Amino acid sequence: MSPAADLITGLADRMPELTAVYEDLHEHPELSFQEERTAALVAARLTEAGFDVTTGVGGTGVVGVLRNGDGASVLLRADMDALPVREIESVPYRSTATAVNPDGDTVPVMHACGHDTHVTALLGAAAQLAARREHWSGTVLAVFQPAEEIGEGARAMLDDGFLDRFPRYDVALGQHITSAPSEHLYALPGVFMAAADSLRVTVFGRGGHGSMPQATVDPIVIAASIVLRLQTIVSREIAATDVAVVTVGAIRAGAKENVIPAEAELKLNIRTFDPAVRERVLTAVERIVKAEAAAAGAPKEPEIAPINDFPLLVNDEEATRKVISAFTETFGEANVHDTSRKPGSEDFGCFGTAAGVPSVFWNFGGFDPALYPDGPARPQPAVAAGTAPGNHSPEFVPTGTEPTLRRATEAMLTAAAVWLGRAG
Amino acid sequence: MSPAADLITGLADRMPELTAVYEDLHEHPELSFQEERTAALVAARLTEAGFDVTTGVGGTGVVGVLRNGDGASVLLRADMDALPVREIESVPYRSTATAVNPDGDTVPVMHACGHDTHVTALLGAAAQLAARREHWSGTVLAVFQPAEEIGEGARAMLDDGFLDRFPRYDVALGQHITSAPSEHLYALPGVFMAAADSLRVTVFGRGGHGSMPQATVDPIVIAASIVLRLQTIVSREIAATDVAVVTVGAIRAGAKENVIPAEAELKLNIRTFDPAVRERVLTAVERIVKAEAAAAGAPKEPEIAPINDFPLLVNDEEATRKVISAFTETFGEANVHDTSRKPGSEDFGCFGTAAGVPSVFWNFGGFDPALYPDGPARPQPAVAAGTAPGNHSPEFVPTGTEPTLRRATEAMLTAAAVWLGRAG
Amino acid sequence: MSPAADLITGLADRMPELTAVYEDLHEHPELSFQEERTAALVAARLTEAGFDVTTGVGGTGVVGVLRNGDGASVLLRADMDALPVREIESVPYRSTATAVNPDGDTVPVMHACGHDTHVTALLGAAAQLAARREHWSGTVLAVFQPAEEIGEGARAMLDDGFLDRFPRYDVALGQHITSAPSEHLYALPGVFMAAADSLRVTVFGRGGHGSMPQATVDPIVIAASIVLRLQTIVSREIAATDVAVVTVGAIRAGAKENVIPAEAELKLNIRTFDPAVRERVLTAVERIVKAEAAAAGAPKEPEIAPINDFPLLVNDEEATRKVISAFTETFGEANVHDTSRKPGSEDFGCFGTAAGVPSVFWNFGGFDPALYPDGPARPQPAVAAGTAPGNHSPEFVPTGTEPTLRRATEAMLTAAAVWLGRAG
Amino acid sequence: MSPAADLITGLADRMPELTAVYEDLHEHPELSFQEERTAALVAARLTEAGFDVTTGVGGTGVVGVLRNGDGASVLLRADMDALPVREIESVPYRSTATAVNPDGDTVPVMHACGHDTHVTALLGAAAQLAARREHWSGTVLAVFQPAEEIGEGARAMLDDGFLDRFPRYDVALGQHITSAPSEHLYALPGVFMAAADSLRVTVFGRGGHGSMPQATVDPIVIAASIVLRLQTIVSREIAATDVAVVTVGAIRAGAKENVIPAEAELKLNIRTFDPAVRERVLTAVERIVKAEAAAAGAPKEPEIAPINDFPLLVNDEEATRKVISAFTETFGEANVHDTSRKPGSEDFGCFGTAAGVPSVFWNFGGFDPALYPDGPARPQPAVAAGTAPGNHSPEFVPTGTEPTLRRATEAMLTAAAVWLGRAG
Repeated sequence: MSPAADLITGLADRMPELTAVYEDLHEHPELSFQEERTAALVAARLTEAGFDVTTGVGGTGVVGVLRNGDGASVLLRADMDALPVREIESVPYRSTATAVNPDGDTVPVMHACGHDTHVTALLGAAAQLAARREHWSGTVLAVFQPAEEIGEGARAMLDDGFLDRFPRYDVALGQHITSAPSEHLYALPGVFMAAADSLRVTVFGRGGHGSMPQATVDPIVIAASIVLRLQTIVSREIAATDVAVVTVGAIRAGAKENVIPAEAELKLNIRTFDPAVRERVLTAVERIVKAEAAAAGAPKEPEIAPINDFPLLVNDEEATRKVISAFTETFGEANVHDTSRKPGSEDFGCFGTAAGVPSVFWNFGGFDPALYPDGPARPQPAVAAGTAPGNHSPEFVPTGTEPTLRRATEAMLTAAAVWLGRAG
Repeated sequence: MSPAADLITGLADRMPELTAVYEDLHEHPELSFQEERTAALVAARLTEAGFDVTTGVGGTGVVGVLRNGDGASVLLRADMDALPVREIESVPYRSTATAVNPDGDTVPVMHACGHDTHVTALLGAAAQLAARREHWSGTVLAVFQPAEEIGEGARAMLDDGFLDRFPRYDVALGQHITSAPSEHLYALPGVFMAAADSLRVTVFGRGGHGSMPQATVDPIVIAASIVLRLQTIVSREIAATDVAVVTVGAIRAGAKENVIPAEAELKLNIRTFDPAVRERVLTAVERIVKAEAAAAGAPKEPEIAPINDFPLLVNDEEATRKVISAFTETFGEANVHDTSRKPGSEDFGCFGTAAGVPSVFWNFGGFDPALYPDGPARPQPAVAAGTAPGNHSPEFVPTGTEPTLRRATEAMLTAAAVWLGRAG
Repeated sequence: MSPAADLITGLADRMPELTAVYEDLHEHPELSFQEERTAALVAARLTEAGFDVTTGVGGTGVVGVLRNGDGASVLLRADMDALPVREIESVPYRSTATAVNPDGDTVPVMHACGHDTHVTALLGAAAQLAARREHWSGTVLAVFQPAEEIGEGARAMLDDGFLDRFPRYDVALGQHITSAPSEHLYALPGVFMAAADSLRVTVFGRGGHGSMPQATVDPIVIAASIVLRLQTIVSREIAATDVAVVTVGAIRAGAKENVIPAEAELKLNIRTFDPAVRERVLTAVERIVKAEAAAAGAPKEPEIAPINDFPLLVNDEEATRKVISAFTETFGEANVHDTSRKPGSEDFGCFGTAAGVPSVFWNFGGFDPALYPDGPARPQPAVAAGTAPGNHSPEFVPTGTEPTLRRATEAMLTAAAVWLGRAG
Repeated sequence: MSPAADLITGLADRMPELTAVYEDLHEHPELSFQEERTAALVAARLTEAGFDVTTGVGGTGVVGVLRNGDGASVLLRADMDALPVREIESVPYRSTATAVNPDGDTVPVMHACGHDTHVTALLGAAAQLAARREHWSGTVLAVFQPAEEIGEGARAMLDDGFLDRFPRYDVALGQHITSAPSEHLYALPGVFMAAADSLRVTVFGRGGHGSMPQATVDPIVIAASIVLRLQTIVSREIAATDVAVVTVGAIRAGAKENVIPAEAELKLNIRTFDPAVRERVLTAVERIVKAEAAAAGAPKEPEIAPINDFPLLVNDEEATRKVISAFTETFGEANVHDTSRKPGSEDFGCFGTAAGVPSVFWNFGGFDPALYPDGPARPQPAVAAGTAPGNHSPEFVPTGTEPTLRRATEAMLTAAAVWLGRAG
């Protein structure tokens, strides 16, 4: 029996309980840095499993430590936060939660990025590691991080003395659900996920009566022009063989139909894999935003302020090849796939970078294989109805819950076993 | 002494009190159908003056009746509601009020359309009429209407049995502050203010992760395209010599920069003076909204729903000429001006139409004459800094408070005297 | 018999010949300042009728003078040039002509503005005046002007010594076909037609391979952005009750699909009735053009150069009322209509302005009444198929040729008789 | 001495003559299928060198065959056509040529894609092969192809019986100049250049007078909307890690500023590396074009017609590695670079595909190394002034003529020697 198989043994019996945990988490999502209920649930379960638990790390973060003799020390990480998205009706445990966001607005909340599966799988892996501790040796840090969505949670934990307060580790391991068939895993050595920059653009016009636009400078027309003109950055200014994404994720201006407002706000999100490309995109955003305001004769230049940023996520080449190899051995070649670089972003890499150790991040699928007519190796979500949704969509509700959670737990155990099993 | 002069006598002494009332109202604006505090203030003052007062008419409306012998019956109307606009800092009695709007959002509130001046002037006129009742005879209905901004207040009062519960009237008189020099009056027989149609457009895309637009249909891009393409209705589809305004007063989509939302909402306001033009604009709005969604491959057609509508405001030709003549006699030719049709809208006309009697509506200026370099006859607000703001602007704070309120009160008394003074 | 009726007598017999002249002109249209064939035809017919003829006035202009005793002197004017439009197939005398325009391009040519009807009607009126000279006295100047479409013909004739070389006149009369029912006439005292400014905008990008936009600055994207943003001038910057038209009549960039060109050219046409509005539009055009180039990071500012301009056309109030009165007497009230100001432009007014005499300009209809379901008083061309085309359309082929030409000739004679008949 | 070095010996003496040939070709560019002068020059020189020459193959194509004993048969190909681009003034041999394009328009012509360097280098290689025939054995086909720019020349030659009329070959070799330092070479096994689809889009509006847009459907506004909305295909509908380019290379509508035209024409060029991406782009183009016309109420759907198309260019893996290896041996590692897939397109691959033999295509640089501050390995042309231009730019005039031509000739000989030298 392989070290991974040793750790996985008995997981099947644990699945009903893990599924219940998952559905509870899914029904009670919490926004970034508001993960109080989730953290309490996590802390209780880790404690119950025998971990040494610290809460309130970097805000709402939870760290569980399990020392089990000599050997490597492995950091396993899950992120806990959800998103301001209103979930569609598709499952009994649908979220109807709301929360007050940092702007003071009450918004719907949903685990539209599947962090509930990450938490559940890491709780499952922690329970297995505790239950099967005679089959490995070393130290495990189970890290439940807040606020990944805003790129601040990992840094908040590190800034809160993480490296000093907890055991040093030899490798950091993390995973993310993706729109792909359940039970399938995806990994890539090297640059894996994009750098991200989020910006808040405030456009200043001059408000007035909706019937007298001539006495105003209409900020909604400026904002609309900016949105359309920003499309030309990717379509015209970046080489087709380079990678960049420029998304306007939010736009907001005005309250009443017959009042032309004085301002409009846009929230932008930019993804790049290359510093030169990133620089060109940021320069172009500023140029376009200013020029479109000038085109309207705006009384004041727009303001462009950072909201947050994510570094590139780079998988350690050697460590990642080891994990892929273990996955292939445990799950079979048909279930493990090379993948391409992802334009999404992650702050997981901070745990490796800060400690100067390798980090490995992979994806696992979470949906009915029938949704992917092109097969598991090219499992892109598509636009047409009845097809698989992408992360952050209000339809991002995993359809193969049990196999998804089981495989995610197995994957975490299998990757951990690469380091922990050796010493066993 | 003219009948108007008789009614005006003594007003000067009342101005400090009226100015205080105005500043109090300005500092405590209330949204449509929420005018509780304003209505209470109005009711108390009318009662004090000797009017027979009814509150809660059509929601928060107040009607004061003063019977003073035989003669004509005159309806004098002021509207009470304010707007969800955040006032700039310019006066000590600046509003910092907020309120919860019908969407459940907390919004700033400001008397950005100057209804506080209308209420104050009508309270002043009512007080004068009560104090000077030996100088006229007839009946006065002082009507303080809620919810003019959303085109529902006049209808709500009429639907609440207005015509049956209160004395019949021979004429309806109303006025509105405008961006023009204080002490100047503006009137036009015939079609005076536009029909207005407000629409809520909901655009449906497909939400998803901000880094994977290919798995989404981005509703913000659709909304931006709609905003820009709607500009072509006025610029290309309506004859230059016809009149139409198409304003997008509000746009809202998304909450987080890295989530592409599933929907976007636009609020439109349309002004026209001609049914054929109105029909063409509405047809074009629908055509453009649907086509721009189709251009993006939207999974569902946009929804276009009415928010509210206003009828044309038509001043009775004969009655209006009488009022203009009285204004000219009382205030001198230099202070009374012909004006052009206004693209703004009003539901005041409903009081005339419903009762089958003439109605007359006029404008009064409210700003420092120095702000109008083209003179009082063409007092258009301009875009440049330091110039006069237009209605609904966050800067719409009358600068000549005392003369503005005095002239507005005098104007209401002068117009009333055309009917009341005769019988005296 | 009225003076007008005297002059009209016998016109019916002349109609087959005039119709033949018209069809010949229609089939052989010529561009501005290239009206050689037309001028030769005109000169021959005027000479034949007994006029004293001068050709080559201001390029290709023709002036015929008929002295007939004492009395008023009347200038009657027709314009001769056609447009670079490809005529649709609808009549046997359809134009298939081409010409080389000033840019050196070979373009189709069509009388899409109906100047062929103007020439024909003035030739008909001239023939009648010559034939019926015992019924009037005075002097007639029949002026056939080149290059009205580019706003240069009238000035070219005046600059060529017109006022010195030909008899002084007491009034200038002119007419234009419009999209309205044949036999109907339309006039307006005061400001009648708009000022026009035409501009050439050259946008500079950086050319390159179509597959490498990142190495270019795409001038076609800049030009498209300008076109869309220009729409906001009329929709947002000009009061709805003011009048402005901003049209991009031509756009040209690139030759090959896989080469991003270095430049793009736009031709703009602007119509206004008010100097302040004109100024605001021109300022906004410049602001938008420059800002949209800046938004793209263009290496060089766009160039904006004038192509031509037209002054306002103002009908003398008193003289116009006389003409309307004569029209009503001759053709009946049902065939003579007040009309609104037209956003089109004309250089006819220069003949009045230069001589310091009144000028009167009116419109006549040229199409089947069935095309105007709203009746002759509101005969707007519409967009739907099978409806009446507007001037400059490739479908602008008069459908009621004989009544159109007859009424236009009668109208010119009737207006002339107001001055010539008096002295008779 | 390597086989390559054997063939190169003596080339230095030939360079003045080759440079003169190049400058002559550069000064006399010809459009696709009009390469009469070029073909005559080529035929004369090939004949002079001792090749067996056939002209008029596939229109203006020229094939020279040199049989030199047993051994492999190698096809060497150069393309001859130029582009409708107006050359900037930078060299004495600048082109001022014009030609009539297939639309009947007279256009400037320039070797803006550097095919003149291809022709020159292949003439140089042919001369060397003829002069040095004792140093190799086998058969050489020197193919000078017309009309590469429109993707038709290779097929035209093949359709003209190429495979039957000339000796079979074992490999096809070709090269293209690129914006990179002179003397540097770039190659990539596998997919190297994009599939290209060119489309002509004709938008139908309704023409009319520039002052009466309400009677028209303005095709220029539709075309501008299409241009902007097409940008969203790459920015929103294609994954950032996939490759697509959508370029509008030409736009044309209207002739006169005050006439709204009835139609507008766009020429599109699309580049993709993947059939699924290609399909999605083409579908999106059609959807956007139709919807934008519908948004304007266009009377007729736009027409979308193919102009031309190019297949993917796929370099044979094994043959390409051999060529790269030979280049490295001959020119040193510092001068030979891996490169990325190019979004440009080529029909060269047809010669390999049609004969069922491997084909190899590579790039050579043509500019002063100082223009590439990032070094020869990442030699991207940039937008800033004074930097290296991209292909198809009016500034695409090689700056290092002599080294550029020498290295291109050497490269062709070196690649040929891989096959010809063996048998030597």
